[in-house]
Amino acid sequence: MSGGVEIERKFLVAQLPDLSGLAAKPVRQGYVTQAGDTVELRLREKGGACFLTLKSDGGLARMEREIEITRDQFEALWPATGGRVLEKTRHLGTLSDGTAFELDVFTGALAPLVMVEVEFDTEDAARAFTPPAWFGADVTEDRRYRNRALADDGVPG
Amino acid sequence: MSGGVEIERKFLVAQLPDLSGLAAKPVRQGYVTQAGDTVELRLREKGGACFLTLKSDGGLARMEREIEITRDQFEALWPATGGRVLEKTRHLGTLSDGTAFELDVFTGALAPLVMVEVEFDTEDAARAFTPPAWFGADVTEDRRYRNRALADDGVPG
Repeated sequence: MSGGVEIERKFLVAQLPDLSGLAAKPVRQGYVTQAGDTVELRLREKGGACFLTLKSDGGLARMEREIEITRDQFEALWPATGGRVLEKTRHLGTLSDGTAFELDVFTGALAPLVMVEVEFDTEDAARAFTPPAWFGADVTEDRRYRNRALADDGVPG
Repeated sequence: MSGGVEIERKFLVAQLPDLSGLAAKPVRQGYVTQAGDTVELRLREKGGACFLTLKSDGGLARMEREIEITRDQFEALWPATGGRVLEKTRHLGTLSDGTAFELDVFTGALAPLVMVEVEFDTEDAARAFTPPAWFGADVTEDRRYRNRALADDGVPG
């Protein structure tokens, strides 16, 4: 868990690059709670480890707690997500200018969505970033592409 | 976890009996979610074991899942209850007619509330039950004395 603010930009993918040489790990996450609830309960499996996260963003009462849970615990709770889930394979790579990227190939109900994220140390660097030709539309500010929205509503039509 | 319906009656306590010979165990439970949320997330510690329970009662989508969690997991999540908790010591005893009872002495914010529950095999037995003199008001049907209501709203005024 990090308390820092992530500076990142998120893009669709116009042309899938060669992923064969990249490290890849399966990620799935789902939401037990629904939009409008006072707290968000998220289950996440990432690279073989499982987590349960509670978040509320109610002004002064803002709270976030995450615990690691066992696979058995995860599997027992997972059906409570009721299909509000996203599943993807995350590929880690580096652009020719040295910028690291995470490319997510969604599976399940969100296939064939593919998105790529790049993270920066400063806002200046984020603004100065020139995406390579294989990147598609910049969806950094498009709330429909947030994890929660994708799990609830599917791929934007 | 039992799928059966419990037939029980719940009373206040007019005069506390001698508890010194009874088995006693601490119980605490708290609610991460609030009334009106689509799901109830309860944390419970009972006799040294800890549990996380999810419940929804939304018609067809009704669901209940409970997992045992470690004490470390419990302690990490407990603050997320934000004080919507109840803590009590549960005493197990038997009335002179052989009926088993559970007497809960509340601590913390709900002190000095004391309640006693008796469970029956049949509805006829529940109706026929004559409480001993030390029992107080029958609150079986009083929703203010349900666990969830006590945790949210405190002792009925």
